[in-house]
Amino acid sequence: MCGITGVYCDGGSLASNYVYYSLFSLQHRGQESAGIASFEKVVRLRKGMGLVSEVIKSDDLRYLRGKVAIGHVRYSTTGNSSLENAQPFVVKSKVGYIAVAHNGNLVNHENLRAYLENLGNVFSSDSDSEVIAQLFSRYMMHLDLLDALKKMTEVLIGSYSIVALINDKLVAFRDPLGFRPLCVGEISDGYIIASESCAIDAVEGKFIKDLDPGEVAIIENGDIEFVKVVETKRRATCVFEYIYFARPDSVIDGVSVYAARKAMGEELAKESPVYADAVSAVPDSGITAAIGYAAASKIPYIESLIKNRYVGRTFIMPKKELRELSVKLKINTVRENVFGKRLILVDDSIVRGTTSRRIVQMLRNAGALEIHLRIASPPIVAPCYFGIDMKTREELIAANHDLKEIAEFLTADSVCYLSLDGLKRALKRCGRGEGYCLACLTSLYPVPVPGEKCIVDS
Amino acid sequence: MCGITGVYCDGGSLASNYVYYSLFSLQHRGQESAGIASFEKVVRLRKGMGLVSEVIKSDDLRYLRGKVAIGHVRYSTTGNSSLENAQPFVVKSKVGYIAVAHNGNLVNHENLRAYLENLGNVFSSDSDSEVIAQLFSRYMMHLDLLDALKKMTEVLIGSYSIVALINDKLVAFRDPLGFRPLCVGEISDGYIIASESCAIDAVEGKFIKDLDPGEVAIIENGDIEFVKVVETKRRATCVFEYIYFARPDSVIDGVSVYAARKAMGEELAKESPVYADAVSAVPDSGITAAIGYAAASKIPYIESLIKNRYVGRTFIMPKKELRELSVKLKINTVRENVFGKRLILVDDSIVRGTTSRRIVQMLRNAGALEIHLRIASPPIVAPCYFGIDMKTREELIAANHDLKEIAEFLTADSVCYLSLDGLKRALKRCGRGEGYCLACLTSLYPVPVPGEKCIVDS
Amino acid sequence: MCGITGVYCDGGSLASNYVYYSLFSLQHRGQESAGIASFEKVVRLRKGMGLVSEVIKSDDLRYLRGKVAIGHVRYSTTGNSSLENAQPFVVKSKVGYIAVAHNGNLVNHENLRAYLENLGNVFSSDSDSEVIAQLFSRYMMHLDLLDALKKMTEVLIGSYSIVALINDKLVAFRDPLGFRPLCVGEISDGYIIASESCAIDAVEGKFIKDLDPGEVAIIENGDIEFVKVVETKRRATCVFEYIYFARPDSVIDGVSVYAARKAMGEELAKESPVYADAVSAVPDSGITAAIGYAAASKIPYIESLIKNRYVGRTFIMPKKELRELSVKLKINTVRENVFGKRLILVDDSIVRGTTSRRIVQMLRNAGALEIHLRIASPPIVAPCYFGIDMKTREELIAANHDLKEIAEFLTADSVCYLSLDGLKRALKRCGRGEGYCLACLTSLYPVPVPGEKCIVDS
Amino acid sequence: MCGITGVYCDGGSLASNYVYYSLFSLQHRGQESAGIASFEKVVRLRKGMGLVSEVIKSDDLRYLRGKVAIGHVRYSTTGNSSLENAQPFVVKSKVGYIAVAHNGNLVNHENLRAYLENLGNVFSSDSDSEVIAQLFSRYMMHLDLLDALKKMTEVLIGSYSIVALINDKLVAFRDPLGFRPLCVGEISDGYIIASESCAIDAVEGKFIKDLDPGEVAIIENGDIEFVKVVETKRRATCVFEYIYFARPDSVIDGVSVYAARKAMGEELAKESPVYADAVSAVPDSGITAAIGYAAASKIPYIESLIKNRYVGRTFIMPKKELRELSVKLKINTVRENVFGKRLILVDDSIVRGTTSRRIVQMLRNAGALEIHLRIASPPIVAPCYFGIDMKTREELIAANHDLKEIAEFLTADSVCYLSLDGLKRALKRCGRGEGYCLACLTSLYPVPVPGEKCIVDS
Repeated sequence: MCGITGVYCDGGSLASNYVYYSLFSLQHRGQESAGIASFEKVVRLRKGMGLVSEVIKSDDLRYLRGKVAIGHVRYSTTGNSSLENAQPFVVKSKVGYIAVAHNGNLVNHENLRAYLENLGNVFSSDSDSEVIAQLFSRYMMHLDLLDALKKMTEVLIGSYSIVALINDKLVAFRDPLGFRPLCVGEISDGYIIASESCAIDAVEGKFIKDLDPGEVAIIENGDIEFVKVVETKRRATCVFEYIYFARPDSVIDGVSVYAARKAMGEELAKESPVYADAVSAVPDSGITAAIGYAAASKIPYIESLIKNRYVGRTFIMPKKELRELSVKLKINTVRENVFGKRLILVDDSIVRGTTSRRIVQMLRNAGALEIHLRIASPPIVAPCYFGIDMKTREELIAANHDLKEIAEFLTADSVCYLSLDGLKRALKRCGRGEGYCLACLTSLYPVPVPGEKCIVDS
Repeated sequence: MCGITGVYCDGGSLASNYVYYSLFSLQHRGQESAGIASFEKVVRLRKGMGLVSEVIKSDDLRYLRGKVAIGHVRYSTTGNSSLENAQPFVVKSKVGYIAVAHNGNLVNHENLRAYLENLGNVFSSDSDSEVIAQLFSRYMMHLDLLDALKKMTEVLIGSYSIVALINDKLVAFRDPLGFRPLCVGEISDGYIIASESCAIDAVEGKFIKDLDPGEVAIIENGDIEFVKVVETKRRATCVFEYIYFARPDSVIDGVSVYAARKAMGEELAKESPVYADAVSAVPDSGITAAIGYAAASKIPYIESLIKNRYVGRTFIMPKKELRELSVKLKINTVRENVFGKRLILVDDSIVRGTTSRRIVQMLRNAGALEIHLRIASPPIVAPCYFGIDMKTREELIAANHDLKEIAEFLTADSVCYLSLDGLKRALKRCGRGEGYCLACLTSLYPVPVPGEKCIVDS
Repeated sequence: MCGITGVYCDGGSLASNYVYYSLFSLQHRGQESAGIASFEKVVRLRKGMGLVSEVIKSDDLRYLRGKVAIGHVRYSTTGNSSLENAQPFVVKSKVGYIAVAHNGNLVNHENLRAYLENLGNVFSSDSDSEVIAQLFSRYMMHLDLLDALKKMTEVLIGSYSIVALINDKLVAFRDPLGFRPLCVGEISDGYIIASESCAIDAVEGKFIKDLDPGEVAIIENGDIEFVKVVETKRRATCVFEYIYFARPDSVIDGVSVYAARKAMGEELAKESPVYADAVSAVPDSGITAAIGYAAASKIPYIESLIKNRYVGRTFIMPKKELRELSVKLKINTVRENVFGKRLILVDDSIVRGTTSRRIVQMLRNAGALEIHLRIASPPIVAPCYFGIDMKTREELIAANHDLKEIAEFLTADSVCYLSLDGLKRALKRCGRGEGYCLACLTSLYPVPVPGEKCIVDS
Repeated sequence: MCGITGVYCDGGSLASNYVYYSLFSLQHRGQESAGIASFEKVVRLRKGMGLVSEVIKSDDLRYLRGKVAIGHVRYSTTGNSSLENAQPFVVKSKVGYIAVAHNGNLVNHENLRAYLENLGNVFSSDSDSEVIAQLFSRYMMHLDLLDALKKMTEVLIGSYSIVALINDKLVAFRDPLGFRPLCVGEISDGYIIASESCAIDAVEGKFIKDLDPGEVAIIENGDIEFVKVVETKRRATCVFEYIYFARPDSVIDGVSVYAARKAMGEELAKESPVYADAVSAVPDSGITAAIGYAAASKIPYIESLIKNRYVGRTFIMPKKELRELSVKLKINTVRENVFGKRLILVDDSIVRGTTSRRIVQMLRNAGALEIHLRIASPPIVAPCYFGIDMKTREELIAANHDLKEIAEFLTADSVCYLSLDGLKRALKRCGRGEGYCLACLTSLYPVPVPGEKCIVDS
């Protein structure tokens, strides 16, 4: 889970400013580290641990001169959480400066790293994104850009949306299955590339298009060119971008995230109705689906839980005597809306179930009569190898327990998930019902993953 | 606008920890500075500019030993924004250590300061809260605690909820009209005092009671005692705590903030209906009223605006070339829910109108057909002298323009405010219709303010 | 032990800049905290823990506007080591802003504090300098400046060199016995007051005069005026300023510190000769006396010990396994100059003796044949109550042991101190042999100190 | 100019602690950046801009676990001054982790970088030390350690003292001409490698030996092994280590730096006597030679200049109105020792001459009658390519002017340099008169440098 952005802007060294502001609107995609690289004769780089506003200061923006810049916010999925793994990665190579910001996850990064190490390459991090930077730089020695990218698609297995600087050239590329989003917009005097369309909105840009799977955008001297590097018949946009990860004001591959999330709530209401006094959400991620559920069920939507906006990363963890406070600090009940009520509580998904359990109990303590949990996505039964943080089957409650056991564990009066068909129906109503990676819901993977079933084999 | 908290906890020097965590849930009341003082033989103090999590670190909590502690978060209304004005104020006096955290605003602080200066007192800040600390300390020289507090009520004009340490004694006091909230809860091994009940919830405490106007709570050696220092026939709880300022999960003087806010939306729907496709809110403060409006009007509630949670205090302001970005960075439209739609947009209140105007235009640009602004409180026509940041009539759009002019300025298709009667009805339905300070809505002040009409005179 | 400075400069808000640079040359007088206050309509203040360069940043200098400014560096003698005790102290009083920077120590500060507390004053620190600020501010209410200062001399017992701002007026005052130094210089467009003349040199100023004991300098609107507030027949300049504390390039009360220190070394050589291969110093404080000893004895001066300039305040203390490293890190032997040599090792003074002992052993380990310790001042037998950090007789080796015991403890082949007569001879040769506070060497105090003998009684 | 250190310590993860403390005593070799890498299963790294005490905190030492660690302090000679160029460099390669700390300068680093880039390697910095790390890592793929080092000596041209970690193995290597120092000591439970012997002293270690040119020390599992990788008939120890750079308490290749420096002063006195009242030094670097000059000339040594120890890196540069202060802040005259005096002023060397000129004028202003400058090394007439910061002939006053012109520029009454023969005599008296790199004094370089004469050709 990461957010990436790239900007070409002709006038006044504003590229890094645009990147800075667009990164703010992608901050939900990663709060662990942030970085910006720009090019003017040389690549300049600033990166560090923390939020964009903590890492990048006015002095840094002044330092990051040039007409092109790329940015990155990171939530680690491979590589441990340290400065070495922060992005963009910048290398000085035979072809000049190459700076890379990567969103996604390679299945075969260890093989590729070994391959490069055997050729004598050395690494400064354990991130798969550095593998991409070095491989790309190696291909660029002997191939032109399009051939190098084509070669990349042949050896990389996994998800990779990329923005890169090759000296003064800004390049954006999306892997042949289009796992992770990447879109292009126009700004005054230039162009912006970003993980989500909300980042184009944030800088008052005009959305041009989503990159197609296997498509590259090349921006050089103010001109933009789109080339389809590889033709693919399939598509595998991550369905979790719609369920949970992307911002509701983004539109990805023509499907509004808000609309999709609301439709999922509506389908869920049709599939799993229950009599109750009110529909409520686990904030913030369940809100839109809850509004959909309420609309479809005609049961009023109310807020029964309030999230504290100020409990962040730098918060001191409670001492063991106060350990039980940690959930209450983050979320509190609105007693008025809970006491004596039969509640439908909508959430977007359940991974481990431990937080859901605590929330159910909190509502119980606040006097809820009944709590019916409704999950606006199907059960997660398999790990993700493409960048969403659900790594092993052990930690997935739905991979190991049936519905009844789950309800018991969560101490809810009932628990229902949206069906796979319901999910597809919801997405179809919003524009496109097929072409998603559903591996975490089906155990069928769109590319070969050691030890897992691949959809193309079946 | 400030948040205050105080804790007595018998075991393990946890008082400052409790204060730290409860301050998090009061962070919405002030983000400018934060501070904690504790007592164990001496008063220990840590305060600084910024959020609680930025100011207080683990080392500080270890330093802040003792069974009693008080805390403060500040948003300045008098005194400029500097470290000198951060609270708690700690003084070493004839009676020992006195530490004071104050929420409110004195109308006559300049007179009181001059009075004290004439007696030879000196000040280290320009805050009215330091005036309170010094006056209190002076009264304590010759009077016992209750007499000193009584004397305070005779000379202080304005709003003042206070928590204080007098050596190892924890004292909480609410002014005779009860402008600002203050409530008391029980925790394991002790007690907590806080501006809002959500802070009691945050530390898993049990709500005991709101302090009555003119009431003091004294906690000493683990025992709590409540004394009514002064009898008052009137009450003047700030109505803006319900309209905008307090957290929706708090209950103040027996009235649920959430319920009040929702009822205001419902009354507004009854008073000012309009045909539309959807009801939407200006996030976050308008959400609850919008849900109420939607419920009462049977028009569906949708989210048309999404707020960026990460644009905070330390954000670099855009250069002049990018100035126009600053609103878009904070708030974005969900185009899906705006394009081609007739929208009712609910907000809690309007002060200057400039932000509302930009939001209306943003929705217009996103394709809204009609925008009907509905404000869930009456027009603000007079300044507040009791701690809410609306200082002069010049800046108040409703003090200088009629409804038609306001709608024109905001470029909305229609603008309607909740009536004063509607507001009272809403509050009455939630438990209590009278006893509020409505000065900013009526120009009638509950205490004498130079140049303004006082309600008791009329 | 503190350093103070004050500047009036007519042009371009440079006063705080001058103060900043002059504080650097007084940094040897205190490294615990630093602060600057300036006046332009209001007093502005920046202070913090650490060195001048750590506490004051460019932003602060820009903030500290105005034609007058004062500064302070602190090494605590009363009051614990915390931000509350950092100076200057600024108070807002009936007469306006008063900012005070104080070098010295009051014997009766507890009585004065109690007196002020009984009048209703409160304190924000436990520093005796805040007592001075508040007392002064109280006297200024009813008296003019000179009378207020005269009144101060009647009630303050102890040492106090002071620079103060009274709104836009810069005032410098030296106590009636002149314990601590204070001198005045001219700069382009104004004047500078400083603890030592080296600070006047540092800003390319021209030395005008040392303030006489009991004399005040008042700088207002560009004009300077000197007034003798109180006549005294005695003088008690701290002799330790010459022995150890002041910088060798300063001249205090007409006596060059370098010359005095060198003369002490010469007298010591005459009094306590010994045959040896070389004369060496404990760096840095013993160097000048060692050069004097070498010159008088005709024994060559060499460096046998080298000090590490980079082991400072922020250094991580060694873990217990490496505890023995801590001396070696700070000081190392030049083996070449030690091995097989008979050494005379000169130091300025001995307080506890523990460091001297370790140094003697270090030289022994490096192969010194003989080590003859020569101390360029008489034995310290009594505590200082006037600002030098030697607080109790228990910690003073010479208060509790005779010369033979001291030599044994230090493991030196011989130990000799300069005699009291030798010290006076040395000072006389440099310009003035009388008028010093010698209390720590004689147990006779120049002002009444409870439990000690006073020179005026005897 | 850099300082390097490496430690093997068997017990308690103390290696990084030892490195930390030994780096303090090498801080004079570089104040720009500092870093430590340790190995325990993985390499851990902490580096940053600033002094050791600013970069490394307690948390970092706790993080830097393991039995082996290396450290580096940097003053840049190639590569610009930025975090990317801070050392140690750590790479993850086919042979595992390789961490390198380098002192020296490669003449042919651009060729080597191009060579590696052609093989597909990429770089994260523009430092020649990263070239060494990558080349070494490449050789280690196919060669054993000794062959890899031998191969290094065949391709690297320039100076390179290196400490490296190859996983848990600590390796120290000195280039075949031994330009930069490197020595080995014993500590309890292990070994220490360091640029200078003063670092061994600092951790109470026992000096074992200087590494010979072309010699490697390998420490593995607690055992140390020395191997001569390449035989060389020549030696080229940098003579400037003795003249200026190293600490006086170090002994390099059997020659005491203190003794050498003092002997240079003595030879200078013999070669260039002049009648004067006193001999003085430019502090700190000229002190030892001045003591030598004084001893040989029988003219008394006095201190006429005092250096401010607190004017460091983080100091705010004076505004243009105060620009002239910047020298006075760093150094002040002791008027007593200057006024009316004929002075011999000894310095170690002159590069540009601008600082010397200001100091001469400062002494003149303080009343010196005559100022005779004596430089304890021959004129610098050629740039250094091996790590000392004298880069171009343009900046070298002696490369462009004769003695008379230099004296005129410096405004001194006379200027004399030590002769080349005098320098050799001084060094010979201290143990070894031959085997030095004298290129900056003779224009004859010990290895081929493009555009310069090489000593082996002549």
